[in-house]
Amino acid sequence: MAEILHPRFLRPLKAPAEDLGQVLKFGPEHPLVLDSGKRLSPLTIAYMTYGTLNADKSNAVLVAHALSGDQFVASTHPVTGKPGWWDLMVGPGKPIDTDRFFVICANVVGGCMGTTGPGEIDPSTGEPYGPKFPVVTIRDMVRAQAMLLDALGIKQLLSVLGGSMGGMQVLQWAASYPDRVFSAMPLATAARHSAQNIAFNEVGRQAIMADPEWKGGNYALSGDNPSKGLAVARMAAHITYLSEAALQRKFGRLLQDREALSFGFDADFQIESYLRHQGMTFVDRFDANSYLYITRAMDYFDLSADYGGVLAEAFKGSKTRFCLVSFTSDWLFPTSENKRIAHALNAAGANVSFVEIKSDRGHDAFLLDEPELFDTISGFLSAAAYAKGVA
Amino acid sequence: MAEILHPRFLRPLKAPAEDLGQVLKFGPEHPLVLDSGKRLSPLTIAYMTYGTLNADKSNAVLVAHALSGDQFVASTHPVTGKPGWWDLMVGPGKPIDTDRFFVICANVVGGCMGTTGPGEIDPSTGEPYGPKFPVVTIRDMVRAQAMLLDALGIKQLLSVLGGSMGGMQVLQWAASYPDRVFSAMPLATAARHSAQNIAFNEVGRQAIMADPEWKGGNYALSGDNPSKGLAVARMAAHITYLSEAALQRKFGRLLQDREALSFGFDADFQIESYLRHQGMTFVDRFDANSYLYITRAMDYFDLSADYGGVLAEAFKGSKTRFCLVSFTSDWLFPTSENKRIAHALNAAGANVSFVEIKSDRGHDAFLLDEPELFDTISGFLSAAAYAKGVA
Repeated sequence: MAEILHPRFLRPLKAPAEDLGQVLKFGPEHPLVLDSGKRLSPLTIAYMTYGTLNADKSNAVLVAHALSGDQFVASTHPVTGKPGWWDLMVGPGKPIDTDRFFVICANVVGGCMGTTGPGEIDPSTGEPYGPKFPVVTIRDMVRAQAMLLDALGIKQLLSVLGGSMGGMQVLQWAASYPDRVFSAMPLATAARHSAQNIAFNEVGRQAIMADPEWKGGNYALSGDNPSKGLAVARMAAHITYLSEAALQRKFGRLLQDREALSFGFDADFQIESYLRHQGMTFVDRFDANSYLYITRAMDYFDLSADYGGVLAEAFKGSKTRFCLVSFTSDWLFPTSENKRIAHALNAAGANVSFVEIKSDRGHDAFLLDEPELFDTISGFLSAAAYAKGVA
Repeated sequence: MAEILHPRFLRPLKAPAEDLGQVLKFGPEHPLVLDSGKRLSPLTIAYMTYGTLNADKSNAVLVAHALSGDQFVASTHPVTGKPGWWDLMVGPGKPIDTDRFFVICANVVGGCMGTTGPGEIDPSTGEPYGPKFPVVTIRDMVRAQAMLLDALGIKQLLSVLGGSMGGMQVLQWAASYPDRVFSAMPLATAARHSAQNIAFNEVGRQAIMADPEWKGGNYALSGDNPSKGLAVARMAAHITYLSEAALQRKFGRLLQDREALSFGFDADFQIESYLRHQGMTFVDRFDANSYLYITRAMDYFDLSADYGGVLAEAFKGSKTRFCLVSFTSDWLFPTSENKRIAHALNAAGANVSFVEIKSDRGHDAFLLDEPELFDTISGFLSAAAYAKGVA
C-alpha cells in the first residue's frame, strides 16, 4: 500500500530530498479524506524515527510538532544545520529515551518538509498546489499520522506527546483513536484556539498576503517568494512565544552594538535586532503558504465542537493515561486553557495528572532546558511503560 | 512670533485644511531644537481648544494624545466623521468639564494631522520630508507643546492628562517643566518602553517598511501609499490594546456571517473580520511615516535615562500633584510599570495618589466608558482646581 520514495521538492527548501528522512507515499487507492470533504492524493509523509521498534511493537512514542516545527526532532536540520528542535528531550538516556523507545516524528500535512503541502506538485495540474491546496485541520494531520502508523504496523502508541499545536494533535489522537493511545502528554496547549490566538495568526496571514510576491499564493510558479511578509509574520508570532518578563530580563532596553541611540530606524535595541534575525532566518526554512495553512488548522481547532460543545464527551470512556503540562508565564496557551482540558478529563473519569511548571520563559519553555519538564516527561513515560508492560 | 495659518497638507488626509482646528506657525527665528541636536523649522502646531481661558489663565488643561490619536479629542474627526477620541471625557459637564476648564489638545510633532511631521513639506527641498524628517522624542513633542503654551500666554497648566503615549508626555511635562504643571495625570503608561512593547512596535515598522509602496519612505513623491503594511501594523498593535479576556468575551470563536467554517482564508471568525476592519479604516486617517516616527519616539522613551538612571531624580523637588491610573487587564502598560512611577514619585517626596481600576478591557480601557476612571479624573481635577484657587 505504501512505497518509500523521495518527493520532488520545490520551495523554499534548499535541502536535498535525501535529507528529508524517511518518506512514505500513499497512492490513489489510499487518499487522505479531509474534514473539508476533499480528498488529498497522492499523500506523502516525511518522517524520522529514533531507537528500535521492539518485537511486539509496544514501545512506539509519537512526537507531534508545533507550527514551525518538523520531523527533525532530534537530528540536525537539513536546511539550517542546527540541532533538532527537541534535541534536549529525545535521544539515548534523555527523557524520551531512544534506548528504550521507538520515537516517530512526522512532518504534518500542509507542511513544507516533505509531507504533502501547498508547495508540492498537484498531480491534477502538474504545478504546485499553491492556493488550490485544500484547507486541512488538526484532525486531518492526525489521520495522516494514523495512516503512517498503520503502514509501520503499530497498533497502539505507548505515548503521544507534543507542545503547542503538537498538543492539539495529542488531544485529537486521544479523542479520535482512544484505543491506539496508551498514554498522552499534551504540553502548553489548548482544546480550542482562543480569539487572541486567532487574531495573532490572522496578523501573520495578512502580512504574508500583503506581500506582492505572494501573488495570490501562486508565487512558486513565477519564482517569487513572499519572504518579507513571512518574516513579519514570524516576528509577530515570536513575541507571543516569550514572556514579557523574559524579554525584559534578556533584552530590556539594551542597545545593539552601539553606545547611544542612533536617532534612526536601524535596530538600535537588541530586541529589534533579535526579532529581525528571527524573521530573516525563518524564511530560509519555511514556506509562506504552509504558514497560512498550518495557522488556519490551529484556528479551526476546537475539539469540543465535534462533541456537541462538551469537551468531556471527547474523552468519554477513555482508558488513556494523561499528563498535562502548562507553564506559569505562557500567555499564548495559559494554564487556564490547560486546566480546562484537565476538568474535561476529570469529568470524563479519565486518568489524568496535571503539572504547572513555574518558569518565566513563556510558551517556548516547553522547548527549553526546564528540569521539571524533563523529570515530568521522563517519569510519566517510565510509568506508562511499566503499566503497559514494556521491558 | 507666531502666526495662524492653514498648512499645506499632502497625504493621506482627505480633510480640508480648514478642518484641522487652530494652527500656529513658528518661523525660522523659533526653531524646535530636538533631542537629536537637529532643528525643526518652520514648526506648525495644529490644535483644538474647548471652553474658555479665564482672565488669569489659570484654568488650562492640556490633554496629550496617544500613538494613533490627534487633536480631535472632543470634536468630530474631519476624516472619519466619528466623535472625538475622548468625547466621553471632555465636554460641558463631563469629567474634564469644559464649562470650567480651558482644554487644549495639540497634534504631536511627527504626527499627520497638521503639526509638522514627515508628510509635510521640507522647506529646504520643497518636497515632503519623508525619511529625511528627523527622529523626534517624547521630550521633543513636549517642547513643542510648551512653545504652544508660550504663544497662548499660559504660564502654568492646571493639569496635564493623557493615556499611553499621552501619559509619557505627562511624565515628561512634569519632569521638564515642574513649575508649569500644577497637577498631572498619567494614565495607563510607563516611564520607559519595555522590551515587549519595543518588539511590537518593531513588527509594525517592519510591516510598513516591507511594503514595496513604502519606497524607502519616499512614497509621497510617487503617489504611492504603503497602506497594506500600515494596516498589518495596526492589526498587530490593536491586539495589544485589548485583553485576552475581552477578546474571548466579545468574539470568542464566533463566526462572521456564516453558519460553518468555510475551509478557506476568508474571515471566518468575527475576530478576523474585526481586525481587518481596524487595519483598513486606520490607513484612511493615518500616515505610514508618522507611524514609524511616533512608534520610534515611544521606544526611545526612558525618562530615567536623563537622570542617571534614577527615575526619582526626574521628580526631585516637584510640587506637582500626581494621580496615576492603571487598569488590571492592561498588559501593554501593566500596573507594575505604573507602580514603578508611583514608587519613584514617593521616593522623590512628591504628592501622588495611585488608582488601579478593575477592568477586563485591557489597555484601551482608558478610552472607554469606565465609571471609576470618570470619577477619578473628575475628582482629581476638581481638587486641583480648588487647591489652585480656580473658581
